[in-house]
Amino acid sequence: MFKKILIANRGEIALRIIRTCKEMGIKTVAVYSTADRESLHVRFADEAVCIGPPPSNKSYLNIPNLIAAAEITNADAIHPGYGFLSENAEFSRVCHESGIKFIGASPEMIQKMGDKATAKATMQAAGVPTIPGSDGLLTSVDQGKRVAKEVGYPVILKATAGGGGRGMRIIKDEKEFEKHWNDARQEAGAAFGNDGMYLEKFVEEPRHVEIQIVGDHTGRACHLSERDCSIQRRHQKLVEETPSPVMTDELREAMGQAAIKGAEAIKYEGAGTIEFLVDKHGKFYFMEMNTRIQVEHPITEEVTDFDLIKEQIKVAAGETISGKNYYPKMYSMECRINAEDPGRGFRPSPGTITNLHLPGGHGVRVDSHVYAGYTIPPNYDSMIAKLIVSAQTREECVTRMKRALQEFVIEGIKTTIPFHIRLMDDPTFKSGMFTTKFLDTFDLEGL
Amino acid sequence: MFKKILIANRGEIALRIIRTCKEMGIKTVAVYSTADRESLHVRFADEAVCIGPPPSNKSYLNIPNLIAAAEITNADAIHPGYGFLSENAEFSRVCHESGIKFIGASPEMIQKMGDKATAKATMQAAGVPTIPGSDGLLTSVDQGKRVAKEVGYPVILKATAGGGGRGMRIIKDEKEFEKHWNDARQEAGAAFGNDGMYLEKFVEEPRHVEIQIVGDHTGRACHLSERDCSIQRRHQKLVEETPSPVMTDELREAMGQAAIKGAEAIKYEGAGTIEFLVDKHGKFYFMEMNTRIQVEHPITEEVTDFDLIKEQIKVAAGETISGKNYYPKMYSMECRINAEDPGRGFRPSPGTITNLHLPGGHGVRVDSHVYAGYTIPPNYDSMIAKLIVSAQTREECVTRMKRALQEFVIEGIKTTIPFHIRLMDDPTFKSGMFTTKFLDTFDLEGL
Repeated sequence: MFKKILIANRGEIALRIIRTCKEMGIKTVAVYSTADRESLHVRFADEAVCIGPPPSNKSYLNIPNLIAAAEITNADAIHPGYGFLSENAEFSRVCHESGIKFIGASPEMIQKMGDKATAKATMQAAGVPTIPGSDGLLTSVDQGKRVAKEVGYPVILKATAGGGGRGMRIIKDEKEFEKHWNDARQEAGAAFGNDGMYLEKFVEEPRHVEIQIVGDHTGRACHLSERDCSIQRRHQKLVEETPSPVMTDELREAMGQAAIKGAEAIKYEGAGTIEFLVDKHGKFYFMEMNTRIQVEHPITEEVTDFDLIKEQIKVAAGETISGKNYYPKMYSMECRINAEDPGRGFRPSPGTITNLHLPGGHGVRVDSHVYAGYTIPPNYDSMIAKLIVSAQTREECVTRMKRALQEFVIEGIKTTIPFHIRLMDDPTFKSGMFTTKFLDTFDLEGL
Repeated sequence: MFKKILIANRGEIALRIIRTCKEMGIKTVAVYSTADRESLHVRFADEAVCIGPPPSNKSYLNIPNLIAAAEITNADAIHPGYGFLSENAEFSRVCHESGIKFIGASPEMIQKMGDKATAKATMQAAGVPTIPGSDGLLTSVDQGKRVAKEVGYPVILKATAGGGGRGMRIIKDEKEFEKHWNDARQEAGAAFGNDGMYLEKFVEEPRHVEIQIVGDHTGRACHLSERDCSIQRRHQKLVEETPSPVMTDELREAMGQAAIKGAEAIKYEGAGTIEFLVDKHGKFYFMEMNTRIQVEHPITEEVTDFDLIKEQIKVAAGETISGKNYYPKMYSMECRINAEDPGRGFRPSPGTITNLHLPGGHGVRVDSHVYAGYTIPPNYDSMIAKLIVSAQTREECVTRMKRALQEFVIEGIKTTIPFHIRLMDDPTFKSGMFTTKFLDTFDLEGL
């Protein structure tokens, strides 16, 4: 087992990883930018190394500085968390070459799954259902129009290097095709330095349902059931839950087996997530694979009693999995508490937390790196806490979440708490019957 | 179902009850003494009524004021929590006569189980194993000596109205009998206004293992397995855990069935706890029955996913139980965080909390009524938080508890946190093999 792990991240996920390391008796090294001196992950790690100033490319994305920090502190492994360098093939490769174990996917795997067109082709070949569309990249606008006609409008045009909705366009009619094609390519070229495009049939009334998997070095994989992440605003997840309200035992088994098939086909090692769209007929389509831990992993932990960070570390250290799959024994839901003003288009609200009171009691878990007096730097992601509740039924989960949100006091900044409280009272949300478009028309007035 | 419940208590248990009421959609009324104006239970309840100044006999023990508060606010039920009036037959009776449902035991039940000698005789008649000793109260010192000789020294002399170790003496030899008899009677007379005494064989190397039960109005009862409360200092529990490290499936079933037998014999209604001593041979003896919710109830909730406060409310409202018993699906442990200085004989350390940071993450639950800036009044119990952790194994539970204790920051006052951290590192504690005497010789130097 590793003796010391460097955590190449910040915020709640750095703290989350430190917690499991402590429980496993593994020493930890925190890294931090000059903007994060006062962060809890710095305080709770055994050692801490400053790796530069913001912005992130000078610190959390600075590979030489991270490797130097690991070498100075004699760390034998690096956990990248999520975001930052967690899906960076170069970082994975440099770690390997420096004799430091990267607790994540191999460079090849990251590359394969990071390129959306390659990922889709790979999964299709493995027998995982994918959305009908272009076979790899489109070479011309005419070819695009031909494929669109074949699969039927509406279609969605996507940048192969894309993410977060950039370089993406929904096209309802052939007349609009060329304009969207030009706009999307330009946007993708500017954002990612890669204007490769592909297209797919646009799935109407979709839900975002993802399957958590874990694979080991023998090539075996297991699944830990699903998470429903349909509550999104501009492709940013805000609430996640498990089980999915639309799940049946048959669909779970089919999706779980498809995810295992996909993971085993590429001999995936570590924790990963295969994201699917599920349509209103219960058909599911591969969307993408994330070769890292997800923000929303705690809800899976709550319903399976499985520590996913521990499992990542064990598998990276060469241990094998049992091969058994895990099924939800209860309900769990996560609300992302962001330092944002929901009444003003969720715009960031950095500042100093003057008063903080965390909710508690039965079935309530808080993962957070903030404290009273903490100043949220404007440089990073706005998520400041994850509120996770669990209960016997979805209905109990929603009422428990509401009471926990009502107990949660964060003063000095605006947060998404009022939005979440309103959501918990919403009849559509309570019914469980909503799509990824639900928040597009959600009333934010007066929040 | 009740529309509004008045909570005749303070501190964490008042907040605990409010949480469940919120989740059940029941309105709540907090009551508070003038020393508790700034308490969280006052802030989180729907309504709050001041019931007088400290000390408690002018407020939390003042029955007319409590009944008036319930009548003014139209509460249809009263939850007494633990301590204060929770086992007061008079209060239960007055509630009943006022047409307010008392969420607890009937006056008769409280009286029967509150008198230790009657409780023991009742349980013995129901077939529950009891410690050999005097048949009811002793009428003279000579009768006491005779019984002591019969059951064999050492024996323990107890006040029938006793509690918390008062009016209790261990006697190792007949020579000491008379002196202890006189001292104990005097102490009991002064403390409880009742100097009735009984004696029992003194169980050596005992563990305190209690069984949680719930009964309904049909007379049916179920058990929710055990809690081991052997980590005590002067009969005050400091750490509780479930399952008990000494438990076997056979012993659990035997103790569970004995507890059900005892509860059904008296047609017990509501949540209750039957406390047993378990000796080193795995024999168990009835100690006492608590006709209320226990401080340590959350560890049972964590391992069974059963909300005990909800169950108390449902049963009080006339619902019936399924009759199924509940068994621990994992491990759970609770540390009582008291405002006490463990390095100075655990003496109370009231004052203002200047800085507070609660632990979080996987498997961590905090039940607490304090916040940063809160001033702990000197008038009440010193418990300020319950830290509850759960994990797959006892070993994981102990390491998780240690990391959670290390994260827990309470500044401005002394707490039992350093004591608990040292305990989690103690080889005997880690082995699980200790008796209720363990803390008598625990090193508190330098805490």
